[in-house]
Amino acid sequence: MHGYRCDRIGVAGDLRDFGGWGRIGAMTEHLDDPAANGPAILAALTGHRTEHPTVWFMRQAGRSLPEYRAAREGTTMLESCLNPELAAEITCQPVRRHGVDAAVLYSDIMVPLVLAGVGVRIEPGVGPVLDQPVRTAAEVDALVGRGPGDASAVAREAQMVVQELGGSTPLIGFAGAPFTIAAYLVEGGPSRDHLAARAMMHSDPASWAKLMDWVADLDADFLTAQTAGGARAVQLFDSWAGSLSEADYTRCVAPHSARALSGLDRTLPVIHFGVNAGHLAVPFAQVAAAASSHPVLGVDHRTTLDHALASLMVAGMTMPLQGNINPALLFAGSEALEAEARAVVESGRRAPGHVVNLGHGVPASTDPDTLTRLVEFVHSL
Amino acid sequence: MHGYRCDRIGVAGDLRDFGGWGRIGAMTEHLDDPAANGPAILAALTGHRTEHPTVWFMRQAGRSLPEYRAAREGTTMLESCLNPELAAEITCQPVRRHGVDAAVLYSDIMVPLVLAGVGVRIEPGVGPVLDQPVRTAAEVDALVGRGPGDASAVAREAQMVVQELGGSTPLIGFAGAPFTIAAYLVEGGPSRDHLAARAMMHSDPASWAKLMDWVADLDADFLTAQTAGGARAVQLFDSWAGSLSEADYTRCVAPHSARALSGLDRTLPVIHFGVNAGHLAVPFAQVAAAASSHPVLGVDHRTTLDHALASLMVAGMTMPLQGNINPALLFAGSEALEAEARAVVESGRRAPGHVVNLGHGVPASTDPDTLTRLVEFVHSL
Repeated sequence: MHGYRCDRIGVAGDLRDFGGWGRIGAMTEHLDDPAANGPAILAALTGHRTEHPTVWFMRQAGRSLPEYRAAREGTTMLESCLNPELAAEITCQPVRRHGVDAAVLYSDIMVPLVLAGVGVRIEPGVGPVLDQPVRTAAEVDALVGRGPGDASAVAREAQMVVQELGGSTPLIGFAGAPFTIAAYLVEGGPSRDHLAARAMMHSDPASWAKLMDWVADLDADFLTAQTAGGARAVQLFDSWAGSLSEADYTRCVAPHSARALSGLDRTLPVIHFGVNAGHLAVPFAQVAAAASSHPVLGVDHRTTLDHALASLMVAGMTMPLQGNINPALLFAGSEALEAEARAVVESGRRAPGHVVNLGHGVPASTDPDTLTRLVEFVHSL
Repeated sequence: MHGYRCDRIGVAGDLRDFGGWGRIGAMTEHLDDPAANGPAILAALTGHRTEHPTVWFMRQAGRSLPEYRAAREGTTMLESCLNPELAAEITCQPVRRHGVDAAVLYSDIMVPLVLAGVGVRIEPGVGPVLDQPVRTAAEVDALVGRGPGDASAVAREAQMVVQELGGSTPLIGFAGAPFTIAAYLVEGGPSRDHLAARAMMHSDPASWAKLMDWVADLDADFLTAQTAGGARAVQLFDSWAGSLSEADYTRCVAPHSARALSGLDRTLPVIHFGVNAGHLAVPFAQVAAAASSHPVLGVDHRTTLDHALASLMVAGMTMPLQGNINPALLFAGSEALEAEARAVVESGRRAPGHVVNLGHGVPASTDPDTLTRLVEFVHSL
């Protein structure tokens, strides 16, 4: 949507061994980056300055849009995600309405499980509910025998989006991180504290690792279908990793999140975002950096971009950031919202690349016009 | 319950100006501390080494205990909190069963609102639901005209507990922090993100401050009733401040939390705990230190005690810590739980005073025997 000046920024990589699962590539491979002549948002994600800030919103597709509710009528959430025509239409709606700089695939974190034949439904007002929770070693063993299923509907959705949007507005792929998906499997549905999942990683670490590897492989297939269909970046979204200590996250979760991303072309930007995971900035960044020469840290609204950057620097890392307008300010009037957006853009200038986003998904009750005006405002800065 | 060796630990105070609301007292006033000849847990809370670690559990009273469910039968949650005999019985149950080192007042964060005549009920499986949310300036003005009501039932409950337990097991008083209570008022009930409350602090800061001051004054009355009844320490519990950035917390919440604590005798230990508030360790500690010469930081299970201590030291502070066994390990078998407890006690030794607790309240589904064995194990260390 916007051009950009090609002021390249040195992005230092962390070259130390990263646990037992591979060496982090240098993050300076973007000198021959094809993104350099493409859409501005890809330039920002790969560490280039752009003329204007670029912006998209997590959960921009669906939920708050009346045209989404009209299009969805008569289908369940999961049916709509697996209907390529309908899902592509819903993916494109916020691009048309708001003029955001990227589309994000309309999907659900449960879709990889559905493709693998796991019995799950989304109950309105509740969330995903599994037919059977998976808690014992035997239940894990029975589950992990399943293959990932056929993701061609997902690839087709991506293709249709890319066809409609052309080259100017790229599609960002999306998957829920293995911990979030596995927590649903173990709990059997939404839970406030994910106690059963957090207990299993300690009481039966072997079954936990088996389950997480299986989910990671489903995620890998799901993401590969999206990039095969034309997605030019991906975001791994961990709703619940924020409930973990850094030690538990690093030991019992991070290797599996890295596995979910390991099948991707390393030149694709990988955005890694966790809700309330400011204390996990470093391992989140490491997971993205293990998978991509263009890692990006998604920052939630509780952490300032400056603080996230400082956390990375203490660990000898730096990378472009995404975020992190406080979603509460969508309800606080335009003056407060614009002040917040301006502050976010200003701190983003101190990062080696920055894409504006909310610090969490678009709340369902958001007035769509507020988002449209916010995009215009961000582009004016 | 346990004696202790009187190895005094220097506790450095932060003597800088703390925002606009007062100067932090030095934290070295405990040399003549009456706690020094009392129960071991008060010694630990005031920065003394004890012979054995001391322990209590947030939400130890109620929920997981069969004798609680039997005693509560036929009464609502809020009725039971305001019936001194019944509430005192429930408060004493976990002391009898588990041998914890302190009782904590059986109550609910909504009780101060009930005393002030606000229409609220606790819906089982949902949480507190207000008859009317308070969202506009006019609604705030109408609400804050109310006085705090009569807290004598709360004082009587405390007296009865102290009478039963005698001097050996002290009673810890308890209140929900103003942000958590105000968020219920503004949302009208439980919400995942507290968006309406977080929006009001930006869209109408004057009404927000008025509302928070009013809630803080209710809290102050509620806590004073407990200490008048014999509570020898208090804990301010903020369930939801973790959803705020440090800037929002420091500006829009911390002064009101300090006000809630400002009426207390400064020699009483004040424990300040927030769920998922590791990023707010410093302002949480500052709030406690503004109110008491014996401030204690409660640490949740996502943050290590070492990390919390380091956060304070960067800000030139240190104080005793409380926490932070991962509650998920109550479900992971005794081996994993004991390893966790041992690690927590070991890092607690690096703090200037430490009281063992969970990193969050006791989950309702906890097997009571697991808690009893955990107390025995902690005492054996």
